[in-house]
Amino acid sequence: MNKMQILERIEDILNDYIEKRKKIAIAESCTGGYICHMITNISGSSKVFDRGVVCYSNQSKKDLLKIEDEVLRNYGAVSEIIAKQLSRNIRFFSNVDIGIAITGIAGPTGDTSSKPIGLVYIGFSSGKNTIVKKFVIKTDRISFKERVLEEVLNLLEWNIKNNY
Amino acid sequence: MNKMQILERIEDILNDYIEKRKKIAIAESCTGGYICHMITNISGSSKVFDRGVVCYSNQSKKDLLKIEDEVLRNYGAVSEIIAKQLSRNIRFFSNVDIGIAITGIAGPTGDTSSKPIGLVYIGFSSGKNTIVKKFVIKTDRISFKERVLEEVLNLLEWNIKNNY
Repeated sequence: MNKMQILERIEDILNDYIEKRKKIAIAESCTGGYICHMITNISGSSKVFDRGVVCYSNQSKKDLLKIEDEVLRNYGAVSEIIAKQLSRNIRFFSNVDIGIAITGIAGPTGDTSSKPIGLVYIGFSSGKNTIVKKFVIKTDRISFKERVLEEVLNLLEWNIKNNY
Repeated sequence: MNKMQILERIEDILNDYIEKRKKIAIAESCTGGYICHMITNISGSSKVFDRGVVCYSNQSKKDLLKIEDEVLRNYGAVSEIIAKQLSRNIRFFSNVDIGIAITGIAGPTGDTSSKPIGLVYIGFSSGKNTIVKKFVIKTDRISFKERVLEEVLNLLEWNIKNNY
């Protein structure tokens, strides 16, 4: 999808959430602010998008989203449980309807035997439940962010359709 | 400047800060995560960039950066004093060397008689001092973000040169 099509999808999603009076907050690690940036390219996004945090360092995950040191040590920042906690906590602490979180390894450095470059977890938390999707997206840093954005939009569209 | 030149400038700045062992945190309002996104496009940026917050709503400025309700009411979110407090507080609460903050009106909506569309304040806070620069950048939302990024890079380069 080209950038203009992506922006149109974002605009449609925002219009749906405006209608439903729902608010969103986002916690980004490996995407570094790209998801927030693309959403805020749409005029009027402030009616839906309340805030984002780019929790790049482990310390910022602890400070801003109350992730526990022990969980980070036991599972690592790039893990299902951290994505779950980040998405739930960004929703809860921001007092919004939907929390989204992204944690992964964009590369090209950061490879470990158990966690390959391109591994990314996307957490999606509503008042009803919290789910985590896992992907492995091996590409350059910028295309990685673009692919993650598409997966986030898929989740939001699925949420709108299913009222999850 | 094209995007490749911008990324080269960012990489040079990051290398300087890596050498000086300095860390940066960023609070973005109207630029919506774009500054964090562009910085994190550089592999290794995590050595310098600790965190960002996209404090879009007034509530998020209060929650995440302890901006007082009274100051927001008296001066408005787009003001010199808020830029100053955001940059100082993101530096202080993140325990980093340099705090950068952006607050402005990207448009096309949001115009008021006293605050025109395109008005933006950039705060820069180091351990030594905190300064605020004011600009009026009238263009579309995406070019607005790009122009603000260039001004942020100018401030960082000036900081490196003058050890401010």
